[in-house]
Amino acid sequence: MPPVISIVGRRHSGKTAVLEALVSELTRRGLCVGTLKHSVHGFEMDREGKDTWRHRRAGAKAVGIMSEREVAVIRTIEAELPLEQAVALLGPDLDLVLTEGFKRAATLKIEVIRVQTGCEVQTPPDQLLAVVADCPLQTTAPGLASGDTAALADLVVAHLGAL
Amino acid sequence: MPPVISIVGRRHSGKTAVLEALVSELTRRGLCVGTLKHSVHGFEMDREGKDTWRHRRAGAKAVGIMSEREVAVIRTIEAELPLEQAVALLGPDLDLVLTEGFKRAATLKIEVIRVQTGCEVQTPPDQLLAVVADCPLQTTAPGLASGDTAALADLVVAHLGAL
Repeated sequence: MPPVISIVGRRHSGKTAVLEALVSELTRRGLCVGTLKHSVHGFEMDREGKDTWRHRRAGAKAVGIMSEREVAVIRTIEAELPLEQAVALLGPDLDLVLTEGFKRAATLKIEVIRVQTGCEVQTPPDQLLAVVADCPLQTTAPGLASGDTAALADLVVAHLGAL
Repeated sequence: MPPVISIVGRRHSGKTAVLEALVSELTRRGLCVGTLKHSVHGFEMDREGKDTWRHRRAGAKAVGIMSEREVAVIRTIEAELPLEQAVALLGPDLDLVLTEGFKRAATLKIEVIRVQTGCEVQTPPDQLLAVVADCPLQTTAPGLASGDTAALADLVVAHLGAL
């Protein structure tokens, strides 16, 4: 399984923007990155009227579509898969998987904090790689400003090198 | 790997409608069915602006999203996966996978024919489970009318029972 780092934080703290910038920077540095989002409220990946949507509506438990550039799969599950199983679905050739959410998993974490949503760090210290925050913090983990993606990428790369 | 039957036919012959009706009927009979579509011209599974779409735009080679009911994954690939690998992505617990397209794969096939798109059967006889057609056919495989989903499902179930 590739190394997994979870981007965690309260709702509207800016997790997706941090993840997006980090994926972009790590990809620019030559890493092959996968992402996995935890969706509390369900999601609609497909588009109404598309063939795969029609397959699912008819009762298919799993639908896939493949072109020469991409393959996509949507599966019905009985309960959330363990993180390891979900990460395995992303494929065998990734240098790193960044997740959005999954704060209860025992992965290394980057916590995103915005003053409007509260400045307390919630991640246990031993799981904390860094905190991305727009307010002063009381933590021993590296605290980074929201826009400092290069420094965040440096920490991630250093962690990968240390594995 | 679960048994695979491919729904093949010319463009606009009605493959999706036949697959949709067959999934619905087989699901009603208690089977756990997966589907896999071959997309010649690429596809857009995700929706612009969604978090997973943003992850991909940032450069992620594989993106996944999981709720307690569903898990979805989109992967970038270098070339089309072999059918067996693509089917494996659909999961371990399926009774049957129906594909749409993949006419060159050596699977059992149901060919869909519509008079407007030509009445010649293209599938090799040894791969042909049935032909769904709205015109007279010269074939030894069972020819079924487009709406006769129950008879088509009977043939599929008989084939599964014979495996």
